[in-house]
Amino acid sequence: MLAQSEQQQSRQPLYEEVAGRISFLIKQGTLRPGDRVPSIRKLSKQMQVSINTVKEAYSQLEDRRLLEARPQSGYYVRARLPELPTEPVLDRPTLSPAEVSMDNIYQLVMRDLLDPKLLQLGIAVPNPELLPIEKLNRMLTRETRRFALQSVSYDLPPGNLRLRQQVAQRLLLSGCTLSPEQIVTTSGCVEAVVLALQVLCKPGDVVAIESPVYFNFLQLIEDLGLKALEIPASPRGGISLEALEFALDRNRGEVKACIVITNFNNPLGSLMSDENKLKLVQLLERHKVPLIEDDIYGDLSFSDKRPSVAKSFDKTGNVLLCSSISKTLAPGYRVGWIAAGRYQEKIERSKMLANVATPTPTQLAIAEFLANGGYEHHLRSIRRVYTRQTAQMADAIGRCFPAGTRVSQPQGGFLLWVEMPEPIDSLKLYEQSKQVGITIAPGQLFSVEGKYRNCVRLNAAFWDPCVEAAIETLGRLAKSQLQIS
Amino acid sequence: MLAQSEQQQSRQPLYEEVAGRISFLIKQGTLRPGDRVPSIRKLSKQMQVSINTVKEAYSQLEDRRLLEARPQSGYYVRARLPELPTEPVLDRPTLSPAEVSMDNIYQLVMRDLLDPKLLQLGIAVPNPELLPIEKLNRMLTRETRRFALQSVSYDLPPGNLRLRQQVAQRLLLSGCTLSPEQIVTTSGCVEAVVLALQVLCKPGDVVAIESPVYFNFLQLIEDLGLKALEIPASPRGGISLEALEFALDRNRGEVKACIVITNFNNPLGSLMSDENKLKLVQLLERHKVPLIEDDIYGDLSFSDKRPSVAKSFDKTGNVLLCSSISKTLAPGYRVGWIAAGRYQEKIERSKMLANVATPTPTQLAIAEFLANGGYEHHLRSIRRVYTRQTAQMADAIGRCFPAGTRVSQPQGGFLLWVEMPEPIDSLKLYEQSKQVGITIAPGQLFSVEGKYRNCVRLNAAFWDPCVEAAIETLGRLAKSQLQIS
Repeated sequence: MLAQSEQQQSRQPLYEEVAGRISFLIKQGTLRPGDRVPSIRKLSKQMQVSINTVKEAYSQLEDRRLLEARPQSGYYVRARLPELPTEPVLDRPTLSPAEVSMDNIYQLVMRDLLDPKLLQLGIAVPNPELLPIEKLNRMLTRETRRFALQSVSYDLPPGNLRLRQQVAQRLLLSGCTLSPEQIVTTSGCVEAVVLALQVLCKPGDVVAIESPVYFNFLQLIEDLGLKALEIPASPRGGISLEALEFALDRNRGEVKACIVITNFNNPLGSLMSDENKLKLVQLLERHKVPLIEDDIYGDLSFSDKRPSVAKSFDKTGNVLLCSSISKTLAPGYRVGWIAAGRYQEKIERSKMLANVATPTPTQLAIAEFLANGGYEHHLRSIRRVYTRQTAQMADAIGRCFPAGTRVSQPQGGFLLWVEMPEPIDSLKLYEQSKQVGITIAPGQLFSVEGKYRNCVRLNAAFWDPCVEAAIETLGRLAKSQLQIS
Repeated sequence: MLAQSEQQQSRQPLYEEVAGRISFLIKQGTLRPGDRVPSIRKLSKQMQVSINTVKEAYSQLEDRRLLEARPQSGYYVRARLPELPTEPVLDRPTLSPAEVSMDNIYQLVMRDLLDPKLLQLGIAVPNPELLPIEKLNRMLTRETRRFALQSVSYDLPPGNLRLRQQVAQRLLLSGCTLSPEQIVTTSGCVEAVVLALQVLCKPGDVVAIESPVYFNFLQLIEDLGLKALEIPASPRGGISLEALEFALDRNRGEVKACIVITNFNNPLGSLMSDENKLKLVQLLERHKVPLIEDDIYGDLSFSDKRPSVAKSFDKTGNVLLCSSISKTLAPGYRVGWIAAGRYQEKIERSKMLANVATPTPTQLAIAEFLANGGYEHHLRSIRRVYTRQTAQMADAIGRCFPAGTRVSQPQGGFLLWVEMPEPIDSLKLYEQSKQVGITIAPGQLFSVEGKYRNCVRLNAAFWDPCVEAAIETLGRLAKSQLQIS
């Protein structure tokens, strides 16, 4: 379409012309957030311009945050919202350990999360329709028949060997070379983190955590009589290493563990770069503080690239890597693991004391699924859905929430972190929305210091007209708070 | 055979004559420990004496501890050994709380318990050949198909409703009237006890336990930073209520929980009477000390009578009853429960923090087994085997161990507590027997105060020529220690 002469006439570089067309299609709504734009080759043919021109145009659109590149997958339209700041807000970091006591909010919210009558946008569960239920149950049947005697017997820590072999193999994709002997199976990822905290800390000790932080960690810290040291984190790159270093220096010797969700963080969706993972590992090693790394969302990248884990940079056994299949295969199977580095032996003992062993039948089934179930294929298909739905929900938030609302742009997982204008109280929004049958995770849950009053975490694993209407309702309720205040 | 005239000639009462014959058959070895003797009706016919005469004879043999009556089942030959004293030995009770630190022995033993090359007489596992493997796995298949979506989803605390309904129904047999809402499912009985300790105690608190005590409890107490207060217990009736009362008075306000295995205790095999269960509940209620009752062996009575639980006497919610199907159906399924009384809500929260939920598939299968699997029929058959084998092993110990050895005479379960002559060191015996491929549970594991040096716990769930030979070997090794010393 565009001829060389036209470009010269318009005095606009050709790539800008191309970028302008795509940008127009986005603004007009023809291309919607989450949509894939034509491939470079295809657009070059369509618009009769060189491949390099299209590349230049897409690169410009990336810089303007209208498109995003996903390795080996192509370019996609980004959500139209103003994004959250890419750096953590350091306006009031206390960087002092705090006793945790937030039982009331937690109890309140947990009770509602159990209520099947409410639309659950607050709990971080995967969409069960995307789980390979039949295949899993078939494997459960086959494997318990194949290993009949074993299936009813204790598979004492470190746990089922075949499962540990499969986990060790998959960990190669995250950059780790571990043997099955370096892994302990657990009843899910939370149990792995609990065992790590129990082995590393005694009451009164300080644990460094990200802020905002997955609220279960706060409850665990409270229950174990520990103190939380909140380190600011950004929705783009995760925990602030500068703040962590400062805090470790200031609380020298007191910090006994540091918990970080390195990939597609809950709640922020952040992804740490390899460079920062390496720095994190080195920093903690230098301060003799073990790292509890939670990688439960690591398999849910929106691109085809499986991110590395911090554990892959661990040379001294200082990193305890925790994960599970609860977000990808079957939360109800409760199968997880921990690669505990130099704490392997203590974790095995601690696991045995906690509940003797992880149940055998579900371990057998998951081992078989990882070996012969087409796990990679399954991941590709659910990642596509979560990519699309996360963009769709972010888009709906942009349309329905009060002006000034900002939302995270995760590169994996299925969670969105929404920052509303300051006057809005998310605990009040939680109460209001519960009245109309919707639950959300109010920001206050994610900090001991009363931060994130105007934030909520939403689950984008579900997307249908019902959920879309719920987002509209939430937006209306949030706006009504602004009108009153 | 015996005519009235003969009796008059011998001037011996007729019933003594009958008792003498049976006693002769036992001493001669025709009737062996665990054998059932002829029924009263049958013997009365055979010997042509009245029913009352046989009754009188059997009653005399019972008093002489040669026979034992099992309700609705008949009379059985008892083990020939000198029994352990029926009252606890109170020679050196300290009745002061002690810090627990016995990691070394525990680590040592636990590692060996994992070794499949060793004959395991030390670990308290049921015989897998007696487990209904095929039926369980069939139910696992059927139920996960029937509740497909549910099977992969979280069944958040309090856990699977159908399982809780079944447990509540079965608890009627133990004298408890509880609703499913008063039960939380767990990953086995140990987890139930852990959750109870976590909810009831904070570091530094004192826990009253039986002595000797199931060693995992000691490890748990150590791990949670608690102190253990050992209360003497007898192999017949269990914990000494007098000693417990004295200790509670002396440590007023410091004791925050009391753990008791009321039925077919591990390791002693003791069975508390209903009267003592009631007294125990009242005593602890008076002192405001919650009772953690472990009833894991309760379904394994050698008689047809299912004993009550202390929980059945609980009027205030002060008893937390813990149990599981690990000794009767499938240890590897890791399905247990806790009826937590007034601590129900806290236990639910604590369970969620520990590992979110108990795995769903195994809960579904066990619920179905309890509902339609013929659990009572299954129990009858395994109880018969354990009754016989426990007597057989006790008999073999009597034949092979050094003179002066005494052994418990449990009325249920499958464990034997063996007290050897004083000079014998069971940790040394443990080391010696490991050299020849046998592991035992040395007495030192069962106390923080270094007691039970000359005791071992043995598992009678397995009985075959191999195990019989192992008992001979153990006896020889024990005797060799006496010769050296």
